[in-house]
Amino acid sequence: MEPELTGTNLVRVTFRPDGKAVEVERGETLLSAAQAAGIPLVSICGGEGICGRCRVIVRGGKVEAAPTLHLSREEIKKGYVLACQARVLSDVEVEVPPESREGAAAAVDRDARGFLAPEAEARDTFAREPLVRKLYLELPPPTLEDNTGDQERLFREVRRRAEAPILQAGLKVLRGLPPLLRGAGWRVTVTLAQRGGTVELLQAEPGDRAREAYGVAVDVGTSTVVTHLMDLRTGKTLGAEARYNSQRAFGEEVTRRIIAAEREGLEKLQGAVVEDINGLIALLIEQAEVKLQDVLAVMCAGNTAMTHFLLGLPPGTLRKSPYVAAALAPPPVRAAEVGIRINPRGLLYVVPGIGGWVGGDVTAGLLATGLFRATEPFLFIDIGTNGEVVLGDGDWMVAASASAGPAFEGAGVTCGMRAARGAIHRVEFASGGVRYWTVGDEPPRGLCGSGIIDTVAGLFRAGYIDRSGRLDPDRPGVVEWHGELAFRLVPEGEGAREVVVTQRDIENVLRAKAAIYAAVSILLREMGLEPERIKQIYIAGAFGSHIDPENAVALGLVPDLPGAEITFVGNTSLAGAKLCLLSKDAFAEAERLARRVTYYDLINCPYYYEEFMAAKFLPHTDLSRFPTVVKTLRLGEPV
Amino acid sequence: MEPELTGTNLVRVTFRPDGKAVEVERGETLLSAAQAAGIPLVSICGGEGICGRCRVIVRGGKVEAAPTLHLSREEIKKGYVLACQARVLSDVEVEVPPESREGAAAAVDRDARGFLAPEAEARDTFAREPLVRKLYLELPPPTLEDNTGDQERLFREVRRRAEAPILQAGLKVLRGLPPLLRGAGWRVTVTLAQRGGTVELLQAEPGDRAREAYGVAVDVGTSTVVTHLMDLRTGKTLGAEARYNSQRAFGEEVTRRIIAAEREGLEKLQGAVVEDINGLIALLIEQAEVKLQDVLAVMCAGNTAMTHFLLGLPPGTLRKSPYVAAALAPPPVRAAEVGIRINPRGLLYVVPGIGGWVGGDVTAGLLATGLFRATEPFLFIDIGTNGEVVLGDGDWMVAASASAGPAFEGAGVTCGMRAARGAIHRVEFASGGVRYWTVGDEPPRGLCGSGIIDTVAGLFRAGYIDRSGRLDPDRPGVVEWHGELAFRLVPEGEGAREVVVTQRDIENVLRAKAAIYAAVSILLREMGLEPERIKQIYIAGAFGSHIDPENAVALGLVPDLPGAEITFVGNTSLAGAKLCLLSKDAFAEAERLARRVTYYDLINCPYYYEEFMAAKFLPHTDLSRFPTVVKTLRLGEPV
Repeated sequence: MEPELTGTNLVRVTFRPDGKAVEVERGETLLSAAQAAGIPLVSICGGEGICGRCRVIVRGGKVEAAPTLHLSREEIKKGYVLACQARVLSDVEVEVPPESREGAAAAVDRDARGFLAPEAEARDTFAREPLVRKLYLELPPPTLEDNTGDQERLFREVRRRAEAPILQAGLKVLRGLPPLLRGAGWRVTVTLAQRGGTVELLQAEPGDRAREAYGVAVDVGTSTVVTHLMDLRTGKTLGAEARYNSQRAFGEEVTRRIIAAEREGLEKLQGAVVEDINGLIALLIEQAEVKLQDVLAVMCAGNTAMTHFLLGLPPGTLRKSPYVAAALAPPPVRAAEVGIRINPRGLLYVVPGIGGWVGGDVTAGLLATGLFRATEPFLFIDIGTNGEVVLGDGDWMVAASASAGPAFEGAGVTCGMRAARGAIHRVEFASGGVRYWTVGDEPPRGLCGSGIIDTVAGLFRAGYIDRSGRLDPDRPGVVEWHGELAFRLVPEGEGAREVVVTQRDIENVLRAKAAIYAAVSILLREMGLEPERIKQIYIAGAFGSHIDPENAVALGLVPDLPGAEITFVGNTSLAGAKLCLLSKDAFAEAERLARRVTYYDLINCPYYYEEFMAAKFLPHTDLSRFPTVVKTLRLGEPV
Repeated sequence: MEPELTGTNLVRVTFRPDGKAVEVERGETLLSAAQAAGIPLVSICGGEGICGRCRVIVRGGKVEAAPTLHLSREEIKKGYVLACQARVLSDVEVEVPPESREGAAAAVDRDARGFLAPEAEARDTFAREPLVRKLYLELPPPTLEDNTGDQERLFREVRRRAEAPILQAGLKVLRGLPPLLRGAGWRVTVTLAQRGGTVELLQAEPGDRAREAYGVAVDVGTSTVVTHLMDLRTGKTLGAEARYNSQRAFGEEVTRRIIAAEREGLEKLQGAVVEDINGLIALLIEQAEVKLQDVLAVMCAGNTAMTHFLLGLPPGTLRKSPYVAAALAPPPVRAAEVGIRINPRGLLYVVPGIGGWVGGDVTAGLLATGLFRATEPFLFIDIGTNGEVVLGDGDWMVAASASAGPAFEGAGVTCGMRAARGAIHRVEFASGGVRYWTVGDEPPRGLCGSGIIDTVAGLFRAGYIDRSGRLDPDRPGVVEWHGELAFRLVPEGEGAREVVVTQRDIENVLRAKAAIYAAVSILLREMGLEPERIKQIYIAGAFGSHIDPENAVALGLVPDLPGAEITFVGNTSLAGAKLCLLSKDAFAEAERLARRVTYYDLINCPYYYEEFMAAKFLPHTDLSRFPTVVKTLRLGEPV
């Protein structure tokens, strides 16, 4: 028995190097303690001991740790434990190593800046008139002949300059008008925001402040939150910041988070992502030297569950048939109403979603790629924790969601990571060996999505794995690793962490690609569309880099259609959100678009499982579907 | 020197029979003490010792009272003082007699129920579709084939039943939808509110609650606040309540209250009228057995300063040239935002005003009388603390405001009162003597507006006063009263209070009628309209009764136009507010109407003073303008 304070069962956990301490119940996990202390520990599996990411070092005191394969004997000797598997028995002191820490100052996501060619094109389609904008006005002072009210004088001038048939201002603004207008000599800058079919006069400021108008576009991903700071006047991107979604502490998968919201309270999940966004905005404005009061709007795109968490809408009905959202197209709200810190009267917009499992991120993608006005058959695949597939033929569009898991986002695989500095984003298997490239040319820390696709496709094309994904133990680099086979891409001691791809990782990747391919296949069959008619395949997602189309097809992630052009379009969720922020026409198009797309639920499909299982082979059980791959790799021929 | 507590200068004032006590600084007035204690003392002049209404009896302790003519020697002996003129020197005990107390349970205002003939006519003009209404919906439950969001399902059904191109709901409503819809078996009642050009879904309730939809129409008068409870579904009036506007403690005149707001804080004036309205609503719903949550909207009409106080808009610019409002057409706001207690999401609407000194009460009047669609020349006179005059010819309308003072509202004259029980509302001078009628046939307590007009006109027509308004001391009933001449209408000891009209009261009435007549005269001259072309004269106001047109003309309050029909239309501010509440078309018409009327500021007029002075005679200095009166009374002939 430990000595115990009379009448209390509380123990103290101190985190190094932060120096933050917190009191928790004896028996709590270190992960809970870290959450309570506000220490941003990486946790991908939601505290189930599966991901092995929440490694911390116990420097003093006593904990009880469950056995795990994620730690080597040497590490255990050094005091390493998985925070989620270690229960506190006494006052303890714990060190959080850098790799286990979700950095507040996340590295800029390269991916979020790239691949904007289609966005640029779509941008030309829409008039640049931001949803929220400033207008400098010089009003004629009132006289006895022209003595209408201050509000009416202001509105009259606004209407001379802008289209605003329905114009409204809140009481707080009206109360401030008389002193403001007179103090400013009738020269003021108003902020106008589109709300539904109406325009709200959000604020009035003295003098000419029309140049100071900023907005933030946010891709609220299940794994990653990516933000761009936009100059609403010039349309320029002033900065980009990204970080993992802190909700991952509640579970990697959407469903798990919905259950967590039901059990622990929706406000916890809301608070987590809101604080992520607040932190990113704080970074963005500091770097760009922009004042918080001049950030007037936030435009978010995300899957339906993410926008529910963000707005505090109950997500429970999303996880049960018939998978219904509380709201697919929520109204713009005061950002402050959900806790987002920008101008106190600034607005939060959400790109409208298509269905319970096909969200506004897909609407944004169809907008950013210009596919909303496609005239030929196309396929759009957005690869995230869920993979969404949209098939269209120019007249109709139908969308489905496949539960891919986060493998392609750099999570759920042993050495996966987000496309931040040190991530291996490209891998080539050449005759002379394996080459890789990292983000920022820094020492390798792990694999991001494009690196994982390159590695698994490369292993297959180079014959390291067979069509079922099994590693050949006799190949160079294939090693025994914690009781299973693994391909060691980077050995330890190169001044970098060891980077491996395990047998289990490969199975994860195959399951992910099979789920996506099955969705594509089912939509094609259900809509009776000849695959050969497809001219364009757009692949969106936060991979970290362009993907070699040959690798994507060899993996069986993308159908093998020699007549179709495959284009990697990057993070179109973010690109679409930016378009909406910069153009009210684009946002109006997004609203129409979300209603135009038909949602097809794969759960409905009697042959889904069959399609999924058949797609788990490399590239596919049915080789006739992958003629190019068969020809290139000479599959089916006797070796 | 008085004995004094060390270190403090506070004294205690206890009010009987309430038993409420309050500590105030030595030297404070009893009126201030009463305000601090929440004792509703009548005070018309705002604490200047002029109205003589705040009579209280000092039962113990020491006060220093300024001399006043409002109290007889007997009263002073009994301990009577004017609360505003009495300064507290020690702990005191004070009795508040019933006549000095603003009853919380004010008697129903007869006037507010009457004179609705033009309103009924105007009501037929507009479709009865209230600004806020309930709709019972039976939704098809979601299926895999029809699994749109809860919001979208609800909106789809609303749009099948109602015109709502732009439909919005707040986050709070959306957050409650999923459990509500499922718990109610998809049978719900929604509340829809018109806000600008959009419809807000204010709330959703389980089951069919469409019958429980109520609204309150309010005439926010400078002197009196009148409320009607409306059944929004049937259009019926369920109850009427009125009371003096508590802001009178800050001054009788609008300008004085604006100064008080600047000195003491706008929130005090706002709080006063908001609590009046809350008290009246509480009474109305108790009597009608209506739940507060089912009161969904409040529609207020009042002059521009009154709506500024109500909404907390700074009124300061109204009192200085060029007399500009903060907002003439304020947007609908959540009633709770200004402290009005109805359904927490219920809305407060304000009938839009015309100019800084011609408010929404006049817009409401032009609406309720149907004059907004007049095709012939007309004159509309709304007599309140300010008298507003609108002249129109079918094509144009021009409005002006005359500072009449509250004489016709039963205030500012010695025995004046609101048209509550016991008010003398009709007076006839016949050969056999003077007859009078009281509200509720109760013992006379004072004179309301129509009684005052009847009395002064009667005195003139019967020869008790000459053309300058001087009382003839030799006539029966004309007595010496506190140092001036007065006509005693009701002697003391008839089981009732003495009711007199003093020489000074008559002068007040003549000033009031002169201000209004001058405005009429100036508008006619400025617009170049031949008076003979006028076919209709509408007179609105809270007089307490119909007024004899002959008396109104004999007084010179209304022009002497034999070809014009004079109609008394009662409280059209309230009638118009009711119309707006019951018909969104009527409210939309009020918005257009307010913009159509041109505001003419009398301050602009170089011959205003001349016109005013000429109109102070009975009926007017220029007898040629009053041919009928001259003929009937044989004026100008040698006696």
